Amino acid sequence: MSEPTPSSSPWRMARRAARLNPSVIREILKLTEQPGVLSLAGGLPAPDSFPVEAMREATTRVLAEQPQAALQYAASEGYGPLREWVAARLQAQGMKHVKAEQVLMTTGSQQGLDLVAKVMVDAGAPVAVETPTYLGALQAFTPFEPIFAGVASDGEGALPEAIARLPHDAPGTRFMYVLPNFQNPTGRLMPEARRQAVIAAARQAGVPLLEDNPYGDLWFDEEPPTALAARWPEGVTYMGSFSKVLAPGLRLGYVVAPPDLAPKLLQAKQAADLHTPGFNQRIVYEVVKDGFLDRHIPTIRSRYKAQRDVMAEALQREMPAGTEWTKPGGGMFFWVRLPAGCRALDLLPQAVAEGVAFVPGEPFYAQQPDPRTLRLSYVTLTPDEIRQAVAALGRVVRRQLEDTLQKGTP
Amino acid sequence: MSEPTPSSSPWRMARRAARLNPSVIREILKLTEQPGVLSLAGGLPAPDSFPVEAMREATTRVLAEQPQAALQYAASEGYGPLREWVAARLQAQGMKHVKAEQVLMTTGSQQGLDLVAKVMVDAGAPVAVETPTYLGALQAFTPFEPIFAGVASDGEGALPEAIARLPHDAPGTRFMYVLPNFQNPTGRLMPEARRQAVIAAARQAGVPLLEDNPYGDLWFDEEPPTALAARWPEGVTYMGSFSKVLAPGLRLGYVVAPPDLAPKLLQAKQAADLHTPGFNQRIVYEVVKDGFLDRHIPTIRSRYKAQRDVMAEALQREMPAGTEWTKPGGGMFFWVRLPAGCRALDLLPQAVAEGVAFVPGEPFYAQQPDPRTLRLSYVTLTPDEIRQAVAALGRVVRRQLEDTLQKGTP
Repeated sequence: MSEPTPSSSPWRMARRAARLNPSVIREILKLTEQPGVLSLAGGLPAPDSFPVEAMREATTRVLAEQPQAALQYAASEGYGPLREWVAARLQAQGMKHVKAEQVLMTTGSQQGLDLVAKVMVDAGAPVAVETPTYLGALQAFTPFEPIFAGVASDGEGALPEAIARLPHDAPGTRFMYVLPNFQNPTGRLMPEARRQAVIAAARQAGVPLLEDNPYGDLWFDEEPPTALAARWPEGVTYMGSFSKVLAPGLRLGYVVAPPDLAPKLLQAKQAADLHTPGFNQRIVYEVVKDGFLDRHIPTIRSRYKAQRDVMAEALQREMPAGTEWTKPGGGMFFWVRLPAGCRALDLLPQAVAEGVAFVPGEPFYAQQPDPRTLRLSYVTLTPDEIRQAVAALGRVVRRQLEDTLQKGTP
Repeated sequence: MSEPTPSSSPWRMARRAARLNPSVIREILKLTEQPGVLSLAGGLPAPDSFPVEAMREATTRVLAEQPQAALQYAASEGYGPLREWVAARLQAQGMKHVKAEQVLMTTGSQQGLDLVAKVMVDAGAPVAVETPTYLGALQAFTPFEPIFAGVASDGEGALPEAIARLPHDAPGTRFMYVLPNFQNPTGRLMPEARRQAVIAAARQAGVPLLEDNPYGDLWFDEEPPTALAARWPEGVTYMGSFSKVLAPGLRLGYVVAPPDLAPKLLQAKQAADLHTPGFNQRIVYEVVKDGFLDRHIPTIRSRYKAQRDVMAEALQREMPAGTEWTKPGGGMFFWVRLPAGCRALDLLPQAVAEGVAFVPGEPFYAQQPDPRTLRLSYVTLTPDEIRQAVAALGRVVRRQLEDTLQKGTP
């Protein structure tokens, strides 16, 4: 009977803990925080787009008119008037079926991913994702130990024929996670015809969808088609966020689940953090209730659109032949595929040395990454900085291509 | 090949979803929201104790001086200066080992419970809890499908001999959850000698502890002994909260984990909601940084102490012989044991009809509930209301005793 020595830890972790690892992107971002590095790596909205004055007025109002309610414990579902507002807005966007009772306010839409996985995913159960997909979703789902089934995708999103094969390739798939509007990381938009085909294939396959829509309001050229959830209300759980249209530091998102799922999500929410800060929910409601977003979002759109145009021109001018990308119609990202022989991950240290940072594409793939891909954000740098950063990136890629060429010629 | 009919849901839930059920307390609280009912049922701090003016000043400062940083995405660990502040405060309270790097800010301390369970609990693994224990902890742990091992407890907390038996009774116990200061629901305090014995037994048994301390600052008569975490730094994960000393609607708590656990908790936090709102963290830091709590907490203490005294007198005056309770030395709750023959759950409808609500004790037990117990909060009603409410409770209990007596005499 000897006491454990101080070095012998009494903690024995869950099996899932082995899967919890530092985010590759976070580690990369640390690299890029060196002074003098122009970062195209972030997924952060432009901070000078945050409506500080509106926030100030709303906060003053909340603390003057309803301070005790705003600072007290509150319902796990969320603040009633804000849930009503969300439902009305989604109805106006074509999701006619949405009722306020279905809207669950979450601590950022990241929490929506956690809650859906908690309620839906057993260890070893398949979860289908687009190829590539949002890294944060992979991270949220991973603790519940799913098997990821990558669904082959093209520039319009998941391929319907790949969805149709899910009952064979990944039987018992619990849901497919899909980001139809200006996807992170690819920036791609799922067009109308593809939406129809995806819904038909998913219904046929009996695979419900988790539709994530943080970027839908940030369109530049044309409004995206109606949400998938509008087309199959009982088979699609929909997630939205205030992070990209107001400010992410408030951590406010929402999940709209079909009626048979909603009560379980609510219980999971209650177990997870009781409720999302009522203070924040009331402030956001005060900001948005009188149509503020209809005036504010166009200012973000025109700003991001100008930055996208600058990046598109810079890529055209600076990148060597064989580099591929598509000009995104909204959102925050270009997805670039380097010429054959390049690996984005290997390029990163040289790029940082040259004064530019990006995110390599590999972590965004659940399986079989395409090592030539990388993600560039255009929303946080000025037009001049974007031009400089892309020029630096072009130099680094050209240099690697020349090196490869020399090595390949013995 | 037929399409699923609208009524056939494509959603297939995880096994754990069957365990996610509405909180008994929430259902009870709905009952008590009828007009005219004096509620002793809530676990809510008194809303007129919230420091609204300090919050207003802090919010104005944050939005004037650091609006963009406060509204932007932020580190999953939390806001650096607030983590430093927490570490310094815990050090001053005797937890000399705490470093700011170990402090993880959470969305209320409820999230700390969720994260620790996520990292520590496999399905079927034992988790030990006091008897009775905080219901919200049972709810947070349940989705991870533990087997709960109730540790026999008395008025001073868990019994050391019961902890010593855990390796035999519940081998592989991942941790024991313990609330040493003015426990919810019992209000009991673990005295110095018991703390020493609990730590010795836990070390010997190799069972690490999750120490939850939301109420420690709310002592009335005497400051509680040093935290368990100070006595076994590598074996105790400690949780604190701003909910009871500032305001719960901000949803701000923290976890201090031993170094071998902390990185996994951080990854789990990132997956769960990226980070706790930076806006809220900066406001709270602005409120607390210059010693505000040292002025504010004594005002809560003296207020709650007066209310406790009123309830103690009222219980003495109104409750029939055979009713047991202990006057709590802090916190928010009396734990009452009714005379033999009473079941608190059965009494509740009559109590509500009589104009008073309470929380029956049964949901607070992981196993073998004591049906005679109930929890009374004294912090939200005025002294007069407390007197009225306890008088009504006394009448209902007496009536049931008389009915039982009559039935028992055929």
